[in-house]
Amino acid sequence: MSIDTLAGKPVDYSRAFSQAIDRLHAEGRYRVFIDILRNKGHYPSARCFAGHNGPKPITVWCSNDYLAMGQHPKVIAAMEEALHDVGAGSGGTRNIGGNTHYHVDLEGELADLHGKEGALLFTSGYVSNEATLATLAKVLPGCIIYSDELNHASMIAGIRNAGCEKRVFRHNDLAHLEELLAADDPATPKLIAFESVYSMEGDVAPIASICDLADKYNALTYLDEVHAVGMYGPRGGGISERDDVAHRLTIIEGTLGKAFGVMGGYIAADTTIIDVIRSYAPGFIFTTSLSPVLVAGVLASVRHLKSSSAEREGQQAAAARLKAMMTEAGLPVMIGDTHIVPLMVGDPVKAKKISDVLLAEYGIYVQPINYPTVPRGTERLRFTPGPAHSEAMMQELTEALAEIWDRLELRKAA
Amino acid sequence: MSIDTLAGKPVDYSRAFSQAIDRLHAEGRYRVFIDILRNKGHYPSARCFAGHNGPKPITVWCSNDYLAMGQHPKVIAAMEEALHDVGAGSGGTRNIGGNTHYHVDLEGELADLHGKEGALLFTSGYVSNEATLATLAKVLPGCIIYSDELNHASMIAGIRNAGCEKRVFRHNDLAHLEELLAADDPATPKLIAFESVYSMEGDVAPIASICDLADKYNALTYLDEVHAVGMYGPRGGGISERDDVAHRLTIIEGTLGKAFGVMGGYIAADTTIIDVIRSYAPGFIFTTSLSPVLVAGVLASVRHLKSSSAEREGQQAAAARLKAMMTEAGLPVMIGDTHIVPLMVGDPVKAKKISDVLLAEYGIYVQPINYPTVPRGTERLRFTPGPAHSEAMMQELTEALAEIWDRLELRKAA
Ligand SMILES: Cc1ncc(COP(=O)(O)O)c(C=O)c1O
Ligand SMILES: Cc1ncc(COP(=O)(O)O)c(C=O)c1O
Repeated sequence: MSIDTLAGKPVDYSRAFSQAIDRLHAEGRYRVFIDILRNKGHYPSARCFAGHNGPKPITVWCSNDYLAMGQHPKVIAAMEEALHDVGAGSGGTRNIGGNTHYHVDLEGELADLHGKEGALLFTSGYVSNEATLATLAKVLPGCIIYSDELNHASMIAGIRNAGCEKRVFRHNDLAHLEELLAADDPATPKLIAFESVYSMEGDVAPIASICDLADKYNALTYLDEVHAVGMYGPRGGGISERDDVAHRLTIIEGTLGKAFGVMGGYIAADTTIIDVIRSYAPGFIFTTSLSPVLVAGVLASVRHLKSSSAEREGQQAAAARLKAMMTEAGLPVMIGDTHIVPLMVGDPVKAKKISDVLLAEYGIYVQPINYPTVPRGTERLRFTPGPAHSEAMMQELTEALAEIWDRLELRKAA
Repeated sequence: MSIDTLAGKPVDYSRAFSQAIDRLHAEGRYRVFIDILRNKGHYPSARCFAGHNGPKPITVWCSNDYLAMGQHPKVIAAMEEALHDVGAGSGGTRNIGGNTHYHVDLEGELADLHGKEGALLFTSGYVSNEATLATLAKVLPGCIIYSDELNHASMIAGIRNAGCEKRVFRHNDLAHLEELLAADDPATPKLIAFESVYSMEGDVAPIASICDLADKYNALTYLDEVHAVGMYGPRGGGISERDDVAHRLTIIEGTLGKAFGVMGGYIAADTTIIDVIRSYAPGFIFTTSLSPVLVAGVLASVRHLKSSSAEREGQQAAAARLKAMMTEAGLPVMIGDTHIVPLMVGDPVKAKKISDVLLAEYGIYVQPINYPTVPRGTERLRFTPGPAHSEAMMQELTEALAEIWDRLELRKAA
């Protein structure tokens, strides 16, 4: 970002702001938000307000409400009850009037989900990553954070705001991580920060091997399970539950806004670490706590997914089916072993064009994924089939894509 | 914060974390969260789960649900409707599936409230301050931020994370602010960041005079109206509406979690600035958007308070009455001209003791305010009377405080 300043001339703020916007248009990555309303009980169907002829029916293919829990009757009922029992908002920070019994219960439930001593709620997954990483590094002076190159923006923000040393290792590359760990002083505090499911690629980290390295080099571990909690493991404890490694991780972080279907974020760890973050993290301390209505909904959602695997199985089946159909149709689907179905385009303007045609002509809503969400040159479409996407919907989607791929003369799978 | 490291010895992480907690105990500022549930429709009455004999009835005196809008029938009804119409969560970021019609409507309503071209929603007031200030400074390279010394932690975080130059001016001190502005290069981008109502002191910034200085030195202005929106001005547009200066401010920031009774935050400004923050701020972009249920509740709340002044008047009357009673009783109340009623104690251990006795013996809940929320040595109790606090409740509170003041031999008002 730059601004023209001529010596002596007063700062032209409007010009600086307009230039910042112009750069986005020039790169073809200016974002237009699609205005939608989902139809409760009929997800993935929704209404779109983009056109001029009133709301138009669409099928949503890019929601992170992966298991449709945001529409689950138990979740809706719990939220309605809380709304009538205690009201809309918490009315305060956790310390000053905003600590409700729902919050305390949910923290217990989440600690149990990950087999940890404690858990701590934040207003979002973003804030949980930012606040926890920034605070940890401050409590451990001299700390070095080892960060996977594809880590989410919220972790990157936390690490930057920590002001500590940072080493970026190549994506899921154990040899590179070890090389970096070995090069630093053994007496320096170390933290390895990574994700389980990388949501734009759909691949999975080798958690056990990273824990082996952490043991060898006396490092703490921080795992973002945002795209895995609720969806993997017999009780929805994430990839760390599925792989039976949760006990080896220092901190597990998750969101309440994706598979759990509501909003908010959390960490789970041992009691002392939870107490440190609770006591020192500005992003936790100085903000109104999550609405008890949301917390009540999440409680119902987490409890349901601890005992029901039907949603998880439905999602895995839908993802496998859609990948097979796309492969069959010669579409360049990126094959990973998770629920995420990314289709590589490699150009921001084309990715937006495909998405526009899908919405306007087919009533299919999938957002193009551009920089800075993914690296430039790897722009893509990202589909999130779930238990509620039918075979017919998948057929319709695949045919539409095949038609557009031909029409725009896009590259097919090799 | 410090950690013991002996050369050659492996890092003892548990010890570092325990020491961080021990320091809080040693300073008497370890925080214990009081576990409560409010009784909808009967605010400020609530239930407290701290004791061992089941929930105990209490009166809440420290909520920031200032106007009891979190309990308003219109707000509850709107949330219930949204819950049944679209479900629990938004299921995505604003850009990827999480932009609902409610969000678009509320941004229009908030822009109108402040007479600005646009508004932008965030998951909290904290995030709106952090994300906006950090991003603004990056879009204006070389920018210097002038910050009131009592600015909220979220603004301080944004300024720190901006990595720009910062000048701290003495609280509400125009001469000091001018001195700092005059000392810097006129060709440097400048931003003055301040609050309207300072929530721990209860005093108000001289907004018009600060705008005069901004004009004189070609600086942008950023006003946090978190403790004023909904409560001041004929339509609840805050102190800037009351003082008719909203049009002179570059950016007005507010929360949806205090007077509006729900949760979330926002900024209002001209279209280009809104577009810049929308397009560049990681804290806005990379997070699940506010639940449509919350947004629907806020829409009802903002619309109601635009046309009804009964709540504002009730709150002002209650605050004036409580201050008079406390003054009468010789309690060291800090007199300001807002709805906030702070009682100075000046010691963290005593402030906590008074609060403990109030809760255990009188069923009165007011949280002690300690460092880092206020400077050390200025620890206090902070009461937030509202339209729902009756004369009898105030009488009871004042008598309880007078008794405890005598019992603990605390300093009376001069
Ligand atoms: C890997 C990852 N971590 C964290 C987040 C932030 O979670 P939340 O949406 O709850 O803020 C996201 C996405 O939003 C994410 O993809
Ligand atoms: C002055 C001020 N600004 C911002 C905030 C943050 O707002 P929110 O609670 O919506 O995060 C607060 C308090 O929480 C505050 O007191």
